[in-house]
Amino acid sequence: MDIAIALYEGFTALDAIGPYEVLGHVPGAQITFVAARPGPVRNDQGSLTLVAEASLAETTAPDLVLVPGGPGRVDPTTHADLVAWLREVDAATTWTTSVCTGALFLAAAGLLTGRPATTHWTARAELARLGATVVEQRVVRDGKYVTAAGVSAGIDMALTLVGVMAGDLTAQAIQLGIEYDPQPPYQCGSPDTAPAELVEFLRARAAA
Amino acid sequence: MDIAIALYEGFTALDAIGPYEVLGHVPGAQITFVAARPGPVRNDQGSLTLVAEASLAETTAPDLVLVPGGPGRVDPTTHADLVAWLREVDAATTWTTSVCTGALFLAAAGLLTGRPATTHWTARAELARLGATVVEQRVVRDGKYVTAAGVSAGIDMALTLVGVMAGDLTAQAIQLGIEYDPQPPYQCGSPDTAPAELVEFLRARAAA
Repeated sequence: MDIAIALYEGFTALDAIGPYEVLGHVPGAQITFVAARPGPVRNDQGSLTLVAEASLAETTAPDLVLVPGGPGRVDPTTHADLVAWLREVDAATTWTTSVCTGALFLAAAGLLTGRPATTHWTARAELARLGATVVEQRVVRDGKYVTAAGVSAGIDMALTLVGVMAGDLTAQAIQLGIEYDPQPPYQCGSPDTAPAELVEFLRARAAA
Repeated sequence: MDIAIALYEGFTALDAIGPYEVLGHVPGAQITFVAARPGPVRNDQGSLTLVAEASLAETTAPDLVLVPGGPGRVDPTTHADLVAWLREVDAATTWTTSVCTGALFLAAAGLLTGRPATTHWTARAELARLGATVVEQRVVRDGKYVTAAGVSAGIDMALTLVGVMAGDLTAQAIQLGIEYDPQPPYQCGSPDTAPAELVEFLRARAAA
């Protein structure tokens, strides 16, 4: 199974690496980081550089596509290549997936129109504006389209996907291998459980 | 606060990127990926390349050091530079930390001798052999030494650390920002909860 993780300047590292770590352990999986041009791609924080091994143009038939998110809206100018590529390769994918605001790219490509989908909680209105039916769940699957909520939700999405693709036992082995027995120090990882002032603070920052 | 994340050939990507994503949002934090030589560093799966921005030699006084894990034992030959560097910079760090088998590097440097510490569950015996007092917890803190269990535990460690370094509110804002409200699809992320045959399978593979 050929898996392409699409990078672009300003992507959020954990959005890509959480699912990468899970999917890479699926027997037979071949993961390639791809970008408009091969070479170094800088993340949103500006302190991390991942290397894209292939261009979008030469990545013509991935079985699974994953788009990580990044702060800010999808810019039709700077992201035109990626959006067009997603529309093209989606015709033949087995799975088309996103983490966080990566869903906005899928939506901009017209792939989520009328479909249930999720994204980072601060980007729900934007995703709805782009035509998706926003569902407030951590992982949302609609046929071959699987979207995850913000950043860390990509780990849950990938494990869920592995369960479907390769069976529960493989997914469980991977979960045990990455010792994914989360014990967050606070109960504030969702806008439903976090203090209201923090939710407002982050919502305002995302809108700015 | 200068944070150095030490890379080496064969590191596990999520060990580094989970804490990176959390620590990078601490106000005033400057994170640098460092390695024996600056430039591309390949991970354990062989399909991901992160770029180290600075050499160990030029990274003389980080406030916080983090060492990710990777499969296999610490090799005194290939990892001598890293182990020596850890011993050296530890003299002036505020925090010396590891994720997963990164603890074996700290232990090999003599920094965990007699200290409570943790590592990936398959590497507990090796960590004990290197002089640490192994504690079966997800995050173990002993003064400035903080160690996390396997792979994904680095996220919990980093959030815990941010709470101590920068206060609960900052840590909570980061947890909400990365939407860390984990919902693993299976209850098998620890050897205590996973099916016994999976535990044995992974233990045998790690020993091989």
